[in-house]
Amino acid sequence: MISVVLLGAGNVATHLFKAFSKAESVSVVQWYNRSYNVISSYTNDVDTTDDLSQLKEADIYIMAVSDDSISKLSKDLPFENRLIAHTSGSVSIHDLDKKNQRAVFYPLQTFSKAAELNFSEIPICIEVTEKANLQFMKDLAEALGCKPYKINTEQRQTLHLSAVFVNNFTNQLYRIAHEISDAKSINFDILKPLIIETAKKVQDLSPYMAQTGPAKRNDKKTIKRHLKQIESKEHKAIYELLTASIKKTHGQR
Amino acid sequence: MISVVLLGAGNVATHLFKAFSKAESVSVVQWYNRSYNVISSYTNDVDTTDDLSQLKEADIYIMAVSDDSISKLSKDLPFENRLIAHTSGSVSIHDLDKKNQRAVFYPLQTFSKAAELNFSEIPICIEVTEKANLQFMKDLAEALGCKPYKINTEQRQTLHLSAVFVNNFTNQLYRIAHEISDAKSINFDILKPLIIETAKKVQDLSPYMAQTGPAKRNDKKTIKRHLKQIESKEHKAIYELLTASIKKTHGQR
Repeated sequence: MISVVLLGAGNVATHLFKAFSKAESVSVVQWYNRSYNVISSYTNDVDTTDDLSQLKEADIYIMAVSDDSISKLSKDLPFENRLIAHTSGSVSIHDLDKKNQRAVFYPLQTFSKAAELNFSEIPICIEVTEKANLQFMKDLAEALGCKPYKINTEQRQTLHLSAVFVNNFTNQLYRIAHEISDAKSINFDILKPLIIETAKKVQDLSPYMAQTGPAKRNDKKTIKRHLKQIESKEHKAIYELLTASIKKTHGQR
Repeated sequence: MISVVLLGAGNVATHLFKAFSKAESVSVVQWYNRSYNVISSYTNDVDTTDDLSQLKEADIYIMAVSDDSISKLSKDLPFENRLIAHTSGSVSIHDLDKKNQRAVFYPLQTFSKAAELNFSEIPICIEVTEKANLQFMKDLAEALGCKPYKINTEQRQTLHLSAVFVNNFTNQLYRIAHEISDAKSINFDILKPLIIETAKKVQDLSPYMAQTGPAKRNDKKTIKRHLKQIESKEHKAIYELLTASIKKTHGQR
């Protein structure tokens, strides 16, 4: 049984708490948050505290706190030579105070309070300062049904950047399509199967191979008509920039 | 039993041929293409021809040909007052020659030769010039397990534009993430569950509600670091434009 103390109570922490609680080989022995009221509704499920000096012993201390708080919180921990991990995509492992053994446990997924999440199949990016802890970190990921990947800090930061492209930016394109179709009283539901199929396609094909459409074909007539249809200057700029990007990728000009 | 003559042999036509052939209540009585060799491998499955004067009788003639060919092909058809439909997202129903009864049968999905496609649940945008044909067109869509939507030409053109955003442009963002992660020897597989989850999230939540990340939070530090990480000028411009777009949507500046 792996014992875990969880620190923080944001989206990632809350999803991790639920996932750890479900995992048979993991026991959350304590949940710490600096403001107690956020976790106060969980007092029946787990020992909760807002006092660092009361932290219990555990195999690992997982700090799912904001990027800016990681360094200070790791300094404030009142113990040494235990295993601590942060869950951030962008913070270096060396930002953790070296009085403890350091690790990273970064789940590459989108977390929001509103959406339920199936934790299995989430890639977990793992980094350790002591090689001896690598297998333990992998075991912890697998206990959640997740797939562990050994990823160094620079790679993790690159993944975090890539995630902004495939998640935040993609979602904003959905939003723009929502705005454009709403303006003509079109039900956004009609676009949903296409959104799913676009994501599914690149599970097997490379994005390069999966591409279709007017920019790839350099279909100037359609591109011109689309630009005429778009009312917002901002949407037009996005259309032009991404069309140019596709053309460049596929050798059109 | 609905009898269909299919005209054209591109991606959409080929996928439609397979879907119609599987559908129990549809019979493809003939497949026409202007260059015979493209469809010659199907001669055992269906009557094939490259001669318009040899077209058989059918309940509907589906012209899945390039946008530029639709008008001329509809003029060249050697019969009158039958039901003809094109499958384009952008061509007006009035581009079809009015000597026949006109319709549109536009499947809103991404078609490529490389990817197998499950036709069920694909939205079919339907338009007719004669009201009496509306139910028939809906029946045809439902025979494929598809969901029919009555959509006029302007709405269809808006959907076609929206589809470029959620499909072509989204796919290009996947491509950019592929390039960025490849440059640091990161397996693109790590991003695939995030790509799927991002698409799934907006099946239930609006894209507005589903948004997360540094731009939405106006996390200037992360945005600045990401921009520093990006090597390509083109990728940087896309990052900046989409970040500004998200900020605007979510009231950040």
